[in-house]
Amino acid sequence: MKAFLHDDFLLQSPAAIRLYHDYAANMPIIDYHNHLPAQQIADDICFNNLTQAWLQGDHYKWRAMRTHGVAEKCITGDASDRDKFLQWAATVPYTVRNPLFHWTHLELKRYFGIDELLTAETAGSIYDRCSEMLQSPLYSVRNLLQMMKVKLVCTTDDPADTLGYHIAMRQEGAVLKMLPAFRPDMAMKVEDPVAFGYYLQKISEVSGSSIHTLDDYMKVLKSRHEFFAAVGCSVSDHGLEEIYAEVITNETASALFDKLLAGMPLNQAEIRQLKSWFLYAFATWDHASGWVQQYHLGALRNNNKRMLQALGPDTGWDSIGDWQQASALSRFLNRLDEDNTLAKTILYNLNPADNALMATMIGNFNDGSVAGKIQWGSAWWFLDQKEGMVNQLNTLSNMSLISQFVGMLTDSRSFLSFPRHEYFRRLLCNLFGQDMENGELPNDFNWMGGIIQDICFNNARDYFGWKNYL
Amino acid sequence: MKAFLHDDFLLQSPAAIRLYHDYAANMPIIDYHNHLPAQQIADDICFNNLTQAWLQGDHYKWRAMRTHGVAEKCITGDASDRDKFLQWAATVPYTVRNPLFHWTHLELKRYFGIDELLTAETAGSIYDRCSEMLQSPLYSVRNLLQMMKVKLVCTTDDPADTLGYHIAMRQEGAVLKMLPAFRPDMAMKVEDPVAFGYYLQKISEVSGSSIHTLDDYMKVLKSRHEFFAAVGCSVSDHGLEEIYAEVITNETASALFDKLLAGMPLNQAEIRQLKSWFLYAFATWDHASGWVQQYHLGALRNNNKRMLQALGPDTGWDSIGDWQQASALSRFLNRLDEDNTLAKTILYNLNPADNALMATMIGNFNDGSVAGKIQWGSAWWFLDQKEGMVNQLNTLSNMSLISQFVGMLTDSRSFLSFPRHEYFRRLLCNLFGQDMENGELPNDFNWMGGIIQDICFNNARDYFGWKNYL
Amino acid sequence: MKAFLHDDFLLQSPAAIRLYHDYAANMPIIDYHNHLPAQQIADDICFNNLTQAWLQGDHYKWRAMRTHGVAEKCITGDASDRDKFLQWAATVPYTVRNPLFHWTHLELKRYFGIDELLTAETAGSIYDRCSEMLQSPLYSVRNLLQMMKVKLVCTTDDPADTLGYHIAMRQEGAVLKMLPAFRPDMAMKVEDPVAFGYYLQKISEVSGSSIHTLDDYMKVLKSRHEFFAAVGCSVSDHGLEEIYAEVITNETASALFDKLLAGMPLNQAEIRQLKSWFLYAFATWDHASGWVQQYHLGALRNNNKRMLQALGPDTGWDSIGDWQQASALSRFLNRLDEDNTLAKTILYNLNPADNALMATMIGNFNDGSVAGKIQWGSAWWFLDQKEGMVNQLNTLSNMSLISQFVGMLTDSRSFLSFPRHEYFRRLLCNLFGQDMENGELPNDFNWMGGIIQDICFNNARDYFGWKNYL
Repeated sequence: MKAFLHDDFLLQSPAAIRLYHDYAANMPIIDYHNHLPAQQIADDICFNNLTQAWLQGDHYKWRAMRTHGVAEKCITGDASDRDKFLQWAATVPYTVRNPLFHWTHLELKRYFGIDELLTAETAGSIYDRCSEMLQSPLYSVRNLLQMMKVKLVCTTDDPADTLGYHIAMRQEGAVLKMLPAFRPDMAMKVEDPVAFGYYLQKISEVSGSSIHTLDDYMKVLKSRHEFFAAVGCSVSDHGLEEIYAEVITNETASALFDKLLAGMPLNQAEIRQLKSWFLYAFATWDHASGWVQQYHLGALRNNNKRMLQALGPDTGWDSIGDWQQASALSRFLNRLDEDNTLAKTILYNLNPADNALMATMIGNFNDGSVAGKIQWGSAWWFLDQKEGMVNQLNTLSNMSLISQFVGMLTDSRSFLSFPRHEYFRRLLCNLFGQDMENGELPNDFNWMGGIIQDICFNNARDYFGWKNYL
Repeated sequence: MKAFLHDDFLLQSPAAIRLYHDYAANMPIIDYHNHLPAQQIADDICFNNLTQAWLQGDHYKWRAMRTHGVAEKCITGDASDRDKFLQWAATVPYTVRNPLFHWTHLELKRYFGIDELLTAETAGSIYDRCSEMLQSPLYSVRNLLQMMKVKLVCTTDDPADTLGYHIAMRQEGAVLKMLPAFRPDMAMKVEDPVAFGYYLQKISEVSGSSIHTLDDYMKVLKSRHEFFAAVGCSVSDHGLEEIYAEVITNETASALFDKLLAGMPLNQAEIRQLKSWFLYAFATWDHASGWVQQYHLGALRNNNKRMLQALGPDTGWDSIGDWQQASALSRFLNRLDEDNTLAKTILYNLNPADNALMATMIGNFNDGSVAGKIQWGSAWWFLDQKEGMVNQLNTLSNMSLISQFVGMLTDSRSFLSFPRHEYFRRLLCNLFGQDMENGELPNDFNWMGGIIQDICFNNARDYFGWKNYL
Repeated sequence: MKAFLHDDFLLQSPAAIRLYHDYAANMPIIDYHNHLPAQQIADDICFNNLTQAWLQGDHYKWRAMRTHGVAEKCITGDASDRDKFLQWAATVPYTVRNPLFHWTHLELKRYFGIDELLTAETAGSIYDRCSEMLQSPLYSVRNLLQMMKVKLVCTTDDPADTLGYHIAMRQEGAVLKMLPAFRPDMAMKVEDPVAFGYYLQKISEVSGSSIHTLDDYMKVLKSRHEFFAAVGCSVSDHGLEEIYAEVITNETASALFDKLLAGMPLNQAEIRQLKSWFLYAFATWDHASGWVQQYHLGALRNNNKRMLQALGPDTGWDSIGDWQQASALSRFLNRLDEDNTLAKTILYNLNPADNALMATMIGNFNDGSVAGKIQWGSAWWFLDQKEGMVNQLNTLSNMSLISQFVGMLTDSRSFLSFPRHEYFRRLLCNLFGQDMENGELPNDFNWMGGIIQDICFNNARDYFGWKNYL
């Protein structure tokens, strides 16, 4: 029986072991989509204790604690940081077979050199030791990233963001590259006239332009897009239930915008129309600027209204939806392709029942103009675990070319989450290694190792156009 | 090559073997949802022969026989019990890789000590031996249950049921606990005004109250719910294509009920509305009584109208539907949660494409108030087989906490089906054992074995509140 | 580490090896559905070079090349055959883990005895050697089929086809049986009035009957169905997004047809109605003639309009759709069953999320009248790969009887694609072998080997009624 988290963890054959240690392990990391707070990176902060670094904002852990029967007070409530940690530690032994169990112990090991298992018994000692380390400048957030060989991160930013921290980092000439990503989810949240009104006001102030018409609004948004580009941004991102690809004229869009501005709510059909109009416009800008656009599709969010009231969004009350995705996605991408405005695109699905749909959809618009132009993104959120990743890698292999894959990203809010790249790489090497052992791939380590290095780093570097940085 | 159904069947590593034999095998069984006939248990009957015990009512076997080309006469028709058995036996060698092949031989082995394979050649001898045993009181239905260490069973009962057999068992003080479950499917079958009319009449008679309004009807149903509780019931169950969660006022519901009573059929939208209204009401009763409510979702039933006419429902003509489930399920559970009337709930899906949806939906309403309050139920019906169970166990592990899982149930009409618990336990131990061997779980048998014992028995005992019984 | 494509490729246990080599390998092939050009078979042509035999019309390869970044000129454009081949060869090393990588090297090995890997470096030499062989009569298309022990092929033919080549082959008394299949996709393409008008004209000319009414049209189509039968046809096929099963009277159908004839487009609801009407009518003819009807469901075709304009359909711009399939399929099959006009039927799904739905749908209409009357077809197109096939075989095993399965078909346009049968057989033997090794199936090679031989050949021969031919 092998030891828990042994050196060859997840590597189940000699070929896999060799591929991982000789080719994958030492590759640097590009984390091209995450939710790290730019301010903390720019200020290179240190955390006060392990709860602040590890539990704050981590709704994956919160959800597990709630399922285990922990009271909200000890999760997001007013319990002390230490008590919150003790509750988490008492939950960990019951997270077996969940990715949290692997992540937890990998993170303790990789960042803090702790090999003990986290339980109610070991909690106090682990909390004290880790918290002490975290207070040292050696454990500042940039040093945490550097420990994992992270070279570049893309945060996720609202168009109204001033990007002050990104600009500061750029001016500082930091070794770590921190780039923004343009995420206009709020900018098209037309289902909520009040929130939308506030948003208009906010972005109007940031840009110094008043907004009376859709035309005004689009000018402002486009200027933000250009501003983001000037600060080094080359990726956009969207969090959507589904793609909206309704046909709508500019005139209708303007009229709907006017209606909204007059404080009148839009009906379902109008909301879809106006969202369709925005999505198309944003996509043409992405194309014109040579950006990569990302679409995260399929989350059913804020299911628990009571807890939404209490805690706000992104606090662990989301799940997987089952919208029909194929038809609208096809129409959307086709319209852009026909108009010769289809940017490089990454599609992410949350429902694994859509895996084959996504893996084949990308091929419809891969026209040879750019290798791997349309990508099916790495297994995400609930799918960011062993089985989810293996399924994505296998389906991508079977239905497209895995050799062109831009690979892993954390999509995380936590500075301690970067061993997920290691996790991904081990699984990737295990699949290739297993195939080599079985005679399903040639016995040629340089060839297979080269493809693995492409997926770990080179493909992303080239695809996003970051050769100059890296 | 290992012998068929050897002692370590389905256990593919030393750790799996140890987990199963040392921790799982001897745990008693709580079968918290099945379709056993209460009368047969109360009367502790003996079957006349193996066909009556094994083939009668078992539409899994019937379906296989039809696919194999056996004529209906020898399945549900007027052929002799012996001839029916011979036809089944001749089919068995062609059921390889179907769960029926494993179940058949496990059942012959565990109940009757028969190691031979069932074929056309061995059929006669096996039929004679088993039939003789079955006629002995040692093979009465309660003894069959006891052989498998079954401590408690929940039958499935219509609100109009008098529960006479449950009461008799209770009064008898039988060692085996037999509890009813409240299943009001017929009580809300408003798509069929004639059947619904008969139902009203029936339940009116049983309760001794006349029904003229929706209010009358709900009073009667609620009194039945209370009566069930008095007889020891603490679980409800629903067989539905999908959850109905339309918004509808009490006034509209009353009006629709009046329309039905006047013999006028409801349209599709009205049917959905009225069903939504019933589902919500029943759920609040379950919460008020501290019950566990179960929802079996996604069966497309009675596809073959010709055979429905000939044989009635539940005779092997059902399959898996593909309704969109996420949105209504979220609305339904959220409304109950907002009104603070959400009972402990188990969701079962029939379409495995919904696995990830279900595994994450439960987390939206697990708020820490009760450990594992909302459960994703065990792989069911067409999914009650090796691959279906393994997928459910893995997805549950990855997207929630398997440690809180209430585990297996037979959902069966057959007294000989209880080795399915053994089957489940072997698969469960195999997954944990494999992870231990690979270093994906710690090498700690007491820890892992404890979790396995929880899933086999302890979790269900605690979740359903049956500590006093067991 | 085992050599790439070694003799026991995909066979991971001694039992699997024995099953494959002793039982499966030598069985002849019935390829009951493909897209081979009848003319090339009738004329027994030789290809000029490897590009013509291998790349022409093979949109699987084209798609991979485009994803790899190859320009269209070198795929479907005016580059030389040699240059196209060099581009393909340079792509092959980047197709690792895609079925193309296995197919490519299996085909080079089985037809041409080439063990080298195809790369940019080996491309020229392999091209020259294979092209030379292909020019020899020993490598004529019939000889290519014979090398793989192909005994019978079914092409796919429009009702307006004169079947001249099929008739010629029949008259010649060729050893290889080439039968037509009736595929009336164009005959019901009522969404496009112009194309439909041309079709009417074409089939009117072929049949020598003028068409003024729906009644005229159906008489013509039925005469074509009878003509196909006279030429030996006993299978039909349909390529559909989903089954159409709307209720529509003959009068309404006639009126819609008149509308079309008058050049007026039908709306979406009318299109579905008229298609429903056609599908039902064709199905009754299939039943009356004792044919097998096939339905290929779920492809989302022609997503890229720009490339559709440039290259036409079936050129690599299709993907997997996510329509709801269960309800209409049930209604369609039930109506035929109720009217006692349900022919033997094979259902194929393209979205693997529908696997369980399909595997259980067939059981609803397997009534014992014919063994395996309703079949769930082999993994198709994007699913025609290791994982797709294994999933189909396992789901079919678990939810129906794999012993009745009619097995593999190529669905291919390429004479070099027949090692896919070998691929399927290896995977099939591996599954049975693995189960035998684990004690999940009895250690009885004659029994298991017999079932494998049934799936490889015997079941299809009997199911399609081709005993006289084979």
